[in-house]
Amino acid sequence: MKRINIGLLGLGNIGSGTYKVLELNRAHIEATTGLDLRITKILEIDTQRDRGFTVPPGVFTQDADSIFADPDIQIVIELLGGVEPATSFMASALKAGKSVVTANKAAIAENFELLTEAAAANGALLRYEASVGGGIPLIGAITEHLCANEFTELQGILNGTTNYILTKMTEEGRSYDDVLKEAQELGFAEADPTADVEGHDVANKLSILMSLVFDKRIKPDEIQTTGISKLTAADFKEAKDDGCVIKLLASAFRKPDGTCECFVQPTWLNKTHPLSDVRNEFNALFLKGNAVDDLMLYGKGAGPFPTASAVLGDVIAIAKLSLLPDHC
Amino acid sequence: MKRINIGLLGLGNIGSGTYKVLELNRAHIEATTGLDLRITKILEIDTQRDRGFTVPPGVFTQDADSIFADPDIQIVIELLGGVEPATSFMASALKAGKSVVTANKAAIAENFELLTEAAAANGALLRYEASVGGGIPLIGAITEHLCANEFTELQGILNGTTNYILTKMTEEGRSYDDVLKEAQELGFAEADPTADVEGHDVANKLSILMSLVFDKRIKPDEIQTTGISKLTAADFKEAKDDGCVIKLLASAFRKPDGTCECFVQPTWLNKTHPLSDVRNEFNALFLKGNAVDDLMLYGKGAGPFPTASAVLGDVIAIAKLSLLPDHC
Repeated sequence: MKRINIGLLGLGNIGSGTYKVLELNRAHIEATTGLDLRITKILEIDTQRDRGFTVPPGVFTQDADSIFADPDIQIVIELLGGVEPATSFMASALKAGKSVVTANKAAIAENFELLTEAAAANGALLRYEASVGGGIPLIGAITEHLCANEFTELQGILNGTTNYILTKMTEEGRSYDDVLKEAQELGFAEADPTADVEGHDVANKLSILMSLVFDKRIKPDEIQTTGISKLTAADFKEAKDDGCVIKLLASAFRKPDGTCECFVQPTWLNKTHPLSDVRNEFNALFLKGNAVDDLMLYGKGAGPFPTASAVLGDVIAIAKLSLLPDHC
Repeated sequence: MKRINIGLLGLGNIGSGTYKVLELNRAHIEATTGLDLRITKILEIDTQRDRGFTVPPGVFTQDADSIFADPDIQIVIELLGGVEPATSFMASALKAGKSVVTANKAAIAENFELLTEAAAANGALLRYEASVGGGIPLIGAITEHLCANEFTELQGILNGTTNYILTKMTEEGRSYDDVLKEAQELGFAEADPTADVEGHDVANKLSILMSLVFDKRIKPDEIQTTGISKLTAADFKEAKDDGCVIKLLASAFRKPDGTCECFVQPTWLNKTHPLSDVRNEFNALFLKGNAVDDLMLYGKGAGPFPTASAVLGDVIAIAKLSLLPDHC
């Protein structure tokens, strides 16, 4: 059994979900991978909150540098969210030679080159599968399994809150305000829903996908972005009469001259398009590659457990490299 | 640029597709991976057929052992199909310390342990993404990105021929014999369609998935298998009246006591199930994991280019290991 020590930055909802899934599936992970994954330090101010599990004594710290300086920690998981201090913490961890796993779409979108270059310069690895599409293994698919393709098109439903609202408006003919209120009561939408409903969350994710799918750097605030807050019941009726549904899509196309265009906007989709049936809080990414042709990856784009699935998948992928027979 | 030499077993439709995609996307692969992938030997009797490209002199061979004995070849791609001689060839390549990539569902299903153990014993790698679901990166998703999950359920549409026939019977109310004849004329079904329509092809794929998803070994001929040839127009009408469609599914469930059941059979699916909208020749795998929850991976399950996408993804994954900074 190979022991891997992990420093975790943040024990909020996603951090707690990651801790829980690791404990829940510890025996399975050990049996199938030969890895003994241990969270040995956690950066978190709120040490008293009841999270449904007990953190052993000495694991909580309020000193991030003590994690980066710990020679026994090989991997740092960043689950603080937001651009700062997350970016600075990830850069510090990478500079200390530690590999980093994050779910942070804002930090990766805003600082893609800074962070990927910091990883490369220090012989460390940076993985961020959970930053786009939550539990759906779409970054791994694009960067690994489909890397023999040139892509011409991507379209994604990458925000569960807006897809839930649009599904209810489509299927129940209800108004935007009415459904938003329900989504807030159910915990599917934030009290301030701006980042979701105006498309900014999706723009972060599309910025990351542009780097990976088309090798193009575009900052989230440079992406033409239209949200769903202006849609009316009449729009949905008109779409339906035309055999379509309305989805908030992240879209990007590579033109024959090699340039790309990308945007976030409510889009009419014919009912025969695979994305048209993605309902409620589910996410999906549709891709077209010049070898694989049409491909769609579908699943839960948010939530503590689906996000933990992606985070731990990244941790295990990094840890497995230390198990390679020829690895020294 | 890191040069990787490849021996290719078989230059039929899939082998030719793999050769073409490698040439088509050579510049892209070199730029994004730093790998110079070269097919230096091809085992093939038919050296004269017009495949739309020219194989350089000296590359064709009719002596498989000359490939396994070639110290300059690091990876062998097996695209002969069928259990033998493919299994013996793969075992020979692995014993010679070469990593193996295959699309061969029959050989992997029948000889899963023999081949995976031969790889482990010789410090070589064996990858077979293309053997189930063609271009859909489902084996990578299960074994890598989702490996922090325990799975409870899988359901797959894993044969394009039968899904095409069922789609036409569902949507056009036509008879099995009528649609089969059309599928044969379009090249979607073989002259002898038995392996597809009686579910044997799907049983091979389910056997492989049982090993990967549930760590259970079950040979294809031990899986309870029912095909689609006995379905009538009345069955489809009855399903439709009940809000369902009929799909040929590979299904497996893990019971609370840890045992699993699996079978291949035509199955009624409610129209709200994500698999119910998988039409024509498309394939999809639906999985339920205890962290990721519901997940579906959708795409082209066959064809030279989608299969080549998966084969070359495996080749690049193996070749990339030789590029790791710490790898010696």
